[in-house]
Amino acid sequence: MTRSLFPRSLGAAALTVLFASTAANATPAQGSGVAWDIVEGLTTEIGPRIAGSEAEARARAWGEAKLKALGFSNVEIEPFRTGAWQRGPELARLTAPYQQPLAITALGYSVPTPADGLKAELVYFPTLAALEAAPDGSLKGKVAFVDHAMRRAQDGSGYGPYGNVRRLGPSMASRKGAAGIVIRSAGTDSNRDPHTGSTMWMKGTTPIPAGAVSNPDADMIARIAARVAAGKAAPMQIDLTLLGKPFPNAPSGNVVAELPGRDPSLPIVLVACHLDSWDLGTGAIDDASGCGIVTAAALAAQEGGKTLRTIRVLWSGNEEMGMRNGGGAHYVQVHGKEPHALAMESDFGADRVWQVKNNFAPANKALADKVNAALWPMGIVPHEGPVEGGADVGPIIREQKLAVIDLGQDGTHYFDLHHTPDDTLDKVDPAALQQNVDAWTAVLKVVANETGDIAKGVGGEEE
Amino acid sequence: MTRSLFPRSLGAAALTVLFASTAANATPAQGSGVAWDIVEGLTTEIGPRIAGSEAEARARAWGEAKLKALGFSNVEIEPFRTGAWQRGPELARLTAPYQQPLAITALGYSVPTPADGLKAELVYFPTLAALEAAPDGSLKGKVAFVDHAMRRAQDGSGYGPYGNVRRLGPSMASRKGAAGIVIRSAGTDSNRDPHTGSTMWMKGTTPIPAGAVSNPDADMIARIAARVAAGKAAPMQIDLTLLGKPFPNAPSGNVVAELPGRDPSLPIVLVACHLDSWDLGTGAIDDASGCGIVTAAALAAQEGGKTLRTIRVLWSGNEEMGMRNGGGAHYVQVHGKEPHALAMESDFGADRVWQVKNNFAPANKALADKVNAALWPMGIVPHEGPVEGGADVGPIIREQKLAVIDLGQDGTHYFDLHHTPDDTLDKVDPAALQQNVDAWTAVLKVVANETGDIAKGVGGEEE
Repeated sequence: MTRSLFPRSLGAAALTVLFASTAANATPAQGSGVAWDIVEGLTTEIGPRIAGSEAEARARAWGEAKLKALGFSNVEIEPFRTGAWQRGPELARLTAPYQQPLAITALGYSVPTPADGLKAELVYFPTLAALEAAPDGSLKGKVAFVDHAMRRAQDGSGYGPYGNVRRLGPSMASRKGAAGIVIRSAGTDSNRDPHTGSTMWMKGTTPIPAGAVSNPDADMIARIAARVAAGKAAPMQIDLTLLGKPFPNAPSGNVVAELPGRDPSLPIVLVACHLDSWDLGTGAIDDASGCGIVTAAALAAQEGGKTLRTIRVLWSGNEEMGMRNGGGAHYVQVHGKEPHALAMESDFGADRVWQVKNNFAPANKALADKVNAALWPMGIVPHEGPVEGGADVGPIIREQKLAVIDLGQDGTHYFDLHHTPDDTLDKVDPAALQQNVDAWTAVLKVVANETGDIAKGVGGEEE
Repeated sequence: MTRSLFPRSLGAAALTVLFASTAANATPAQGSGVAWDIVEGLTTEIGPRIAGSEAEARARAWGEAKLKALGFSNVEIEPFRTGAWQRGPELARLTAPYQQPLAITALGYSVPTPADGLKAELVYFPTLAALEAAPDGSLKGKVAFVDHAMRRAQDGSGYGPYGNVRRLGPSMASRKGAAGIVIRSAGTDSNRDPHTGSTMWMKGTTPIPAGAVSNPDADMIARIAARVAAGKAAPMQIDLTLLGKPFPNAPSGNVVAELPGRDPSLPIVLVACHLDSWDLGTGAIDDASGCGIVTAAALAAQEGGKTLRTIRVLWSGNEEMGMRNGGGAHYVQVHGKEPHALAMESDFGADRVWQVKNNFAPANKALADKVNAALWPMGIVPHEGPVEGGADVGPIIREQKLAVIDLGQDGTHYFDLHHTPDDTLDKVDPAALQQNVDAWTAVLKVVANETGDIAKGVGGEEE
């Protein structure tokens, strides 16, 4: 609507009356403390920091300075080269049967379309299985569209299967002969902001241009596809321009820092997050929050006396596109022979921790009980099942068969924001962020002060 | 996060198991009936339809065909020329003190920056009053940023005052010598989707480039401005590219159709919406929903017998940028001498009607009581206060001093979506849309069957 309220004759004096009492601006709730300062600082002073970029390098320098200022020891930037990807201009529209601009973004490791666009029929598949079932070669010269039905889940469990549309769909479409692929974003929001994220090219597949549209765009494509299927509209045609391209041998690096324990000879406790972010947002929930949480908790665990074991903080480089050569793998190259007792990672946003899992050996049942008891008053429920660790600690966990504790955050809203332009500071609830810090602190106070052996982990650390 | 769940060895058979049961796609609730069909059809088959565009012309043809198919009589496209505006490429980033891309969109009637961007200091004003208080000439060569604190309100009442930052801010900045202006979007969401909308150039002011950033971007600018004010950061610099430009004498048109009454000699009842939309979304809530509501209600009012008075439907062209020469003004040129009894407009989204107002003369108290009584079982509350009519019916209301009924919709969430890319079909709740149709039908059955005189309206029809 345009309200017919234009104050035609409203002078400066009247405006002053209207606006004088509105000094407060619309900035959301402000937090305080170490975790908030890290999230606020990284998002405000660095912003987007895609792996391999100059911004990621600035983020490392920022992190090094911040960790030193917070009193950490042995603060080091550990540079490495990595496989990465650079975004280019991106634009798409349906040209038939209706003219509709599409809100699209390229997937990491997409290869470029022609600069003036790939013009092709867009073929609708309701699921990844339907694409898989298409005959070989049937998509020659066409662009595949893959729909799906991701729904929100507290534990984020939709991301495994529905995320596979992004991870596996492009290789599958390529094997069918497609000239390109567009997917419904792996996301649970209804904003017009598509979700990026890396795809992977299976051995023997030819990389093709690959993008994701927002959920409202995918809804529209589904409605049009239904008209096409019913013979009520001509086939869909897309004009697709995605100029992003791989960036091999890109510069990245980890930032590592320590709070030395009372007995530096004991195996250390490693806590990790990642410093790089996707380029569309400012990486507030993914994963400045994780860096804020683990760093603040490592410090808070020292209140009332230094911990027995050294706590090492890893702010990893290139998590998002790291695959086999990101920050987690580089950490193993540098630190793989140093004795570790346990690793934990925070990389699932800033909402409240609600569950805890571990892969402790039976010998450490008493330790597990102490951890669970420390979390009990906070309403954090012990769960069975495989631990995940995460991409930054996964390589060292596998290398050393480490014990792991997963503090599971509430992911109900995580995939509204994940890998989108909407991943910004205003989405971080300062109270929930602090609850994370409190939960991590409680755990670190137990495990970093453990005098007994912390045995190797057992059972399914999933990769 | 990147979950370490890549199914390295997951073959086609496993994928089939994972996906076979996911045939349903994520399309939101589907509606049915005339109103839904209009909203679904316009957004799917036409999409964005900015005034003056070829898409707006397609929308008129679509509307003409739809209204004929629905059984309306005297279906006419009434073309006119109008002042309009065309979007161009748009891009902005802070270059100091931090590098931050900004989610920006140009305001209607903005003039273009240089093609390679306007590079200037960005000066922060917390309110429009603060900008007004800046000394003349103090912004020479600079870009003004105007913040504000719009909050959601059920009756949409924030849009008058806070919308003035958009309507009046650019002229004010120009008068202070600014080279450009960027405002916080007049919106209540926290998506990274800025809100467009027309600005206006006051007499004697020089048009300047004018844009709006999303709320999260404005939050960030406010945080950086606080660092600048505290001497902790260098002044903000912006690199602003907004290439949209005015499009004078653009082609537009109204679509008008009638359901003739039993007594065509009686003054008619006019119900209106607008057919054009902003270009960023698909105009689902602004205002395909309005067209769906008034059209479906006009038809439903005939159930059980034709109405006494003719109901005329106006799907107006160029409401969004129409100012003094949009569809409402053209309607008066064509139909200003024909006798009208009453006018109503639907242009505030698709959420439920919760209040009703009128400007009836004391002579029509009995009619007002009948209208209110018809709405009473639906929980729609009579309110006192000035009626608004709307931009499409405002000119004819003023011309003929018409009686008006405002059916006030719940606008709590309207300014999350208004004038953004997020204005898409999934935001329309079919049940709420139908509640609108039911409320409108109830009112039309009363007023279009009124045998007595319907007197001129009285009191404050605000412009």
